[in-house]
Amino acid sequence: MKTQKAVMKFLLLALSLFPSFVSAQDTPLLSGGPVQHNLMPVPTAVRFLEGRVVIDKTFGVATKGHTDARLQAAIERFLTRLKGRTNVTITPGLKTDAAAATVVVQCSGPGSGIPALGEDESYELKISGTQVQLVAPTVVGALRGLETLLQLLISDRDGYYFPAVEIKDQPRFRWRGLLIDIARHYQPPEVLKRNLDGMAALKLNVLHWHLTEDQGFRVESKKFPRLHQMGSDGLFYTQEQIKEIIEYARQRGIRVVPEFDIPGHATSWLVGHPELGSAPGPYTIERGAGIFEPALDPTREDVYKFLETFLTEMAALFPDAYMHIGGDENEGKQWDRNPKIQSFMKEKGIKDNHALQAYFNQRLLKILEKNDKKMIGWDEILQPGLPTSTVIHSWRGTQALADAARKGYDGILSNGYYIDLSFPAAQHYAMDPIPPDSALTENERKHILGGEATMWAEWVSPETIDSRIWPRTAAIAERLWSPPIVTDVDDMYRRLAVVSVQLEELGLTHQRNVDVLLRRMAGSNEIGPLKVLLSIVEPVKEYRRGQQRPATMLSPLTGLVDAAIPDSAAARQFAKMVDGLISDAPRFQTSAVELRKMLTEWRDAEPALIALSERSPSLAEAKALAKDLGNLGEVGLESLSYLTAGVSPPNEWHAAKISVLEEASKPKSSALEFAVLTSMRKLIVAAVEVKQATKMSPIEWRKMVLERAASPSK
Amino acid sequence: MKTQKAVMKFLLLALSLFPSFVSAQDTPLLSGGPVQHNLMPVPTAVRFLEGRVVIDKTFGVATKGHTDARLQAAIERFLTRLKGRTNVTITPGLKTDAAAATVVVQCSGPGSGIPALGEDESYELKISGTQVQLVAPTVVGALRGLETLLQLLISDRDGYYFPAVEIKDQPRFRWRGLLIDIARHYQPPEVLKRNLDGMAALKLNVLHWHLTEDQGFRVESKKFPRLHQMGSDGLFYTQEQIKEIIEYARQRGIRVVPEFDIPGHATSWLVGHPELGSAPGPYTIERGAGIFEPALDPTREDVYKFLETFLTEMAALFPDAYMHIGGDENEGKQWDRNPKIQSFMKEKGIKDNHALQAYFNQRLLKILEKNDKKMIGWDEILQPGLPTSTVIHSWRGTQALADAARKGYDGILSNGYYIDLSFPAAQHYAMDPIPPDSALTENERKHILGGEATMWAEWVSPETIDSRIWPRTAAIAERLWSPPIVTDVDDMYRRLAVVSVQLEELGLTHQRNVDVLLRRMAGSNEIGPLKVLLSIVEPVKEYRRGQQRPATMLSPLTGLVDAAIPDSAAARQFAKMVDGLISDAPRFQTSAVELRKMLTEWRDAEPALIALSERSPSLAEAKALAKDLGNLGEVGLESLSYLTAGVSPPNEWHAAKISVLEEASKPKSSALEFAVLTSMRKLIVAAVEVKQATKMSPIEWRKMVLERAASPSK
Repeated sequence: MKTQKAVMKFLLLALSLFPSFVSAQDTPLLSGGPVQHNLMPVPTAVRFLEGRVVIDKTFGVATKGHTDARLQAAIERFLTRLKGRTNVTITPGLKTDAAAATVVVQCSGPGSGIPALGEDESYELKISGTQVQLVAPTVVGALRGLETLLQLLISDRDGYYFPAVEIKDQPRFRWRGLLIDIARHYQPPEVLKRNLDGMAALKLNVLHWHLTEDQGFRVESKKFPRLHQMGSDGLFYTQEQIKEIIEYARQRGIRVVPEFDIPGHATSWLVGHPELGSAPGPYTIERGAGIFEPALDPTREDVYKFLETFLTEMAALFPDAYMHIGGDENEGKQWDRNPKIQSFMKEKGIKDNHALQAYFNQRLLKILEKNDKKMIGWDEILQPGLPTSTVIHSWRGTQALADAARKGYDGILSNGYYIDLSFPAAQHYAMDPIPPDSALTENERKHILGGEATMWAEWVSPETIDSRIWPRTAAIAERLWSPPIVTDVDDMYRRLAVVSVQLEELGLTHQRNVDVLLRRMAGSNEIGPLKVLLSIVEPVKEYRRGQQRPATMLSPLTGLVDAAIPDSAAARQFAKMVDGLISDAPRFQTSAVELRKMLTEWRDAEPALIALSERSPSLAEAKALAKDLGNLGEVGLESLSYLTAGVSPPNEWHAAKISVLEEASKPKSSALEFAVLTSMRKLIVAAVEVKQATKMSPIEWRKMVLERAASPSK
Repeated sequence: MKTQKAVMKFLLLALSLFPSFVSAQDTPLLSGGPVQHNLMPVPTAVRFLEGRVVIDKTFGVATKGHTDARLQAAIERFLTRLKGRTNVTITPGLKTDAAAATVVVQCSGPGSGIPALGEDESYELKISGTQVQLVAPTVVGALRGLETLLQLLISDRDGYYFPAVEIKDQPRFRWRGLLIDIARHYQPPEVLKRNLDGMAALKLNVLHWHLTEDQGFRVESKKFPRLHQMGSDGLFYTQEQIKEIIEYARQRGIRVVPEFDIPGHATSWLVGHPELGSAPGPYTIERGAGIFEPALDPTREDVYKFLETFLTEMAALFPDAYMHIGGDENEGKQWDRNPKIQSFMKEKGIKDNHALQAYFNQRLLKILEKNDKKMIGWDEILQPGLPTSTVIHSWRGTQALADAARKGYDGILSNGYYIDLSFPAAQHYAMDPIPPDSALTENERKHILGGEATMWAEWVSPETIDSRIWPRTAAIAERLWSPPIVTDVDDMYRRLAVVSVQLEELGLTHQRNVDVLLRRMAGSNEIGPLKVLLSIVEPVKEYRRGQQRPATMLSPLTGLVDAAIPDSAAARQFAKMVDGLISDAPRFQTSAVELRKMLTEWRDAEPALIALSERSPSLAEAKALAKDLGNLGEVGLESLSYLTAGVSPPNEWHAAKISVLEEASKPKSSALEFAVLTSMRKLIVAAVEVKQATKMSPIEWRKMVLERAASPSK
């Protein structure tokens, strides 16, 4: 079923944007080619053909037409990664003879020297005979094509090869970003670099660099050195480092949009410059998480003079055409309490804080315009009088974005892409900047530029940030690049697992650091039982972590919740096995063996975990979880026994087992939650109803079990 | 038994250097304290007392006496690591009130501004009541003490704590180095930085930076930019980066000694400057491994003029008092073939190539002296006329070093510390720069400055280098710091495993990257069977890798051999279990359960590995190994069955099983070898001789089995 579905998807894709591609329904496009690919994001049009280009020591790349240092460096990186994946000795450097090269990259021109919004990122890949042809109008297009080519690499007994294929590809949205908040927790340049590599691999094209916050001012200002000196704990980027990051991003076709979040979220500015604040100060760097009162004073001319000098300095440092001014979550409490601000408002006829912020933004806008920068800010900046040259960045949602579009504003979506909230990839994947039911006109849709995943950094360290970004952000990258009909969640997860392993070659630590944290907590290499536990728990969602496990920016990020992954693969597998078992009524054999193995592991991990947690106080949080884990294993095994024996449990059994689930679902100080409870409830209900299985059709029985499991009263 | 031995060791230590410490034999020093510690290197004198200092949120460090930025930064790093290990929120920064601080660091003075040979690195730690007192004459001494303090951290059900203890510590040798060859394979600055952190954790104090080789010239020269531009494939350190690394090392009390290896090993110099060579050229960067002919021409004045300019530039860049000029493995073949060189030698009465190199070194020496640098070079530089201010770096061995010492030369040892040759830590640990049987006088011994582990880089990438250095180099660090009586191998391995986990907090990747490589080869997360295989194979020793698996500097370093660890813990465990079983005659039960589990895993991994290797061509090398692995598991299980049943195998069984071992011991294209064959032979012989077990005393029987297993004829 799955394979057929995937095939259908390709065929549909082939039609979507390039009518010259033959209709899938008419032609057996996939004969001889692989029926499953690992491409992510899925290209606009893919047609697999007969044949393959084999990877061996003679492998080499040549360029035709335009070539430059950026393209050549990208080809070198491509060769290194290909070498690493295949274990074939491939010689670095370009081939001079295009006819003899395995890959020919043909660029029409350099494109923008500095990556720019709307740059042509399209490319075509044609693999046939013994050669790969990559054709692109710009170097950035070629870069995107090289990433696709690497993802095409597959192997069989005979070796590694690129399957014969024709691909025509271009992004659906122009703005495909990742916001990294390095203010709440600082990230050294190498963390940004490896994440830029990850972004390039997934064809993301904007690094939104959230540089200032209540908790840190992280950019060197030569004009106002007290900003970074007093507002950063010494953890800031020098201008040299910033230039290096921008160049690193440029090499990968990625724009860097800086954000200076004002007038709220600005405590760290005020540590060195209390005179900018709306209350007298003094101020200290904020250590908590949340929304804080300190805000710049929008009524004083010297504040604008300061901002003009500062933003002019920053405008020269950051070459992108856009500058993000934040503008979010300013509640104006300092403004309310400041009599001077109140009389200013009265004087100017500014009726409320929203209007005052609109006034502030108007002033900012003039400064940005002087510097040839376009303004972008969060939803809140959309106030009467805001010129439509401004871009709205929506944390509110697609509706707010659509409303803005109707008013003529460009916008990007982040609502639904808050990767800090620990939701599974599937949930982000389902969020479309232009939902299928959108009522926007063709012209209004053009205002929806794209979206950004947001890595807010209350609870990430350099050791854990990668595992919060990847691999889930790849699903968002696909949403922003691929045609909207690409929505098969199972196939997304299948490809995501492959991509996740590939991302490791870029130095990303999202997989490898899990064990590092577990070993540190255990103080040893014996982490088997911890891995069993971690496999089926996830960090709690939304903002519950801060509630269940209170902490500050100075707290360690080396606990169980930091090791846990927001998207449990084992829980997905468990859910599939349970569904398989229930669909197998009344035989109940299909998944029983594997299920029993998994459940036994849970049950057996409990005593080892308890012992571990008593030895290692940093694992104290594991104790309550261990008990639940053992109980869940036990409940599952009992359910399986009843099911496979076809015997109903005693009457009181049901309630007793449901209470185990309820116990396991209680909030815990670990800020972790079990990701298997829904499936476990199905299993329990199935056991209770096992006798009915012989009295109904399998489909009816399954339906009844699922309904009862979904009903909270049962 | 082990614990008692360890206790005895402490007690002896306490006496060795500080006579004021009471005699261990007289006093129950360890009452109430932990009998096992994880200190590495073992301090000179340790006395555990009653009590503990608990780690909680009030934890803080204050300084007394001298303080400076370097000390404060070290304390911040200490706090961060403590926070990470304990999951306790510890506030950064220094406490101002020493009386209320948990740790008081009392330094007498700054010590050398730049770390220098012979700087006082001693410290004393006194933990009692509610406070830790760290007293040191220099900041570097305090840095060493902070590392010891972190290693003292232990925990029980009640939380983390430092046990009450008195430690007086100082290094046995002044020069405790790690050579990193970044020439054969370039390593980016962050790799050096994390390894400097690892060095500091193990109290190593010299980074020997091997900067030039046939395969790469990796330092920016502003005087002769063609050197790095043409000799490095673009992979070199800018002078800014070099300064940054030196400062990073200085912060950690580590000297940086640069090596410019001449006149041989110099191909990369000649790519941009063929005029320096002893043959006309042109030259290209060497891609092979081995000893190559190109050498500087020692007969021409312009060569010395060049070297003077270059080395003067480097002398200003590197602040250390020593400069390493290599001088090794120049076979002089180019010299033999160059008529001008030959006539120069005749003219000057230089009788052979050794003498010519001595002449070259004399000239170099003058250049170094002008720059206030002392010369250090490999054994070969010790030629008549060499002034005794020169330091001899011995790859030849302790005898060569002792001979040099008798002649008045300082020396350091690297023979026995070649960590690139894949020997187990125990072997390096056994190598003492001044062996117990040394005939050197007290005064001559002072010339033995210490030693250096050498990370030659023919087969390491940034992804694998950490696993070649760590944790084994920690054993060498202990040899160079701790008293010579610290030689308990079992206890070393126990502590090494703890240290290995702790090293990960510094970003070192020696453990975490193993799975990364396996996942890449498998192209998936399903690497269980690969891990079983990897657990008992090791890279082949000495220079056999290059023979069994020919490759160049351009070859990928992403194979099974790159994932394999040079010191198999599972093989050590297997050996212990087999020895336990044999010592248990005639019952044979002690280790049978665990042994059977391990052997079953080997046997069962075979089919999965074969399937994997057929899917992933980069795992083709696993196929032959898989067969052996399965067979070894089978042989072991059969042996166990005979042993536990007390039944002898049929006559032909012995030869058949030994032939399985012989098959498994054959060289393979994977350049991997099984680390369990010796133990497996014992198991087979034990099974063959099982009937005899009831006829002899257990001790006699064991002796017989071990003798027969050790005899190749059996």
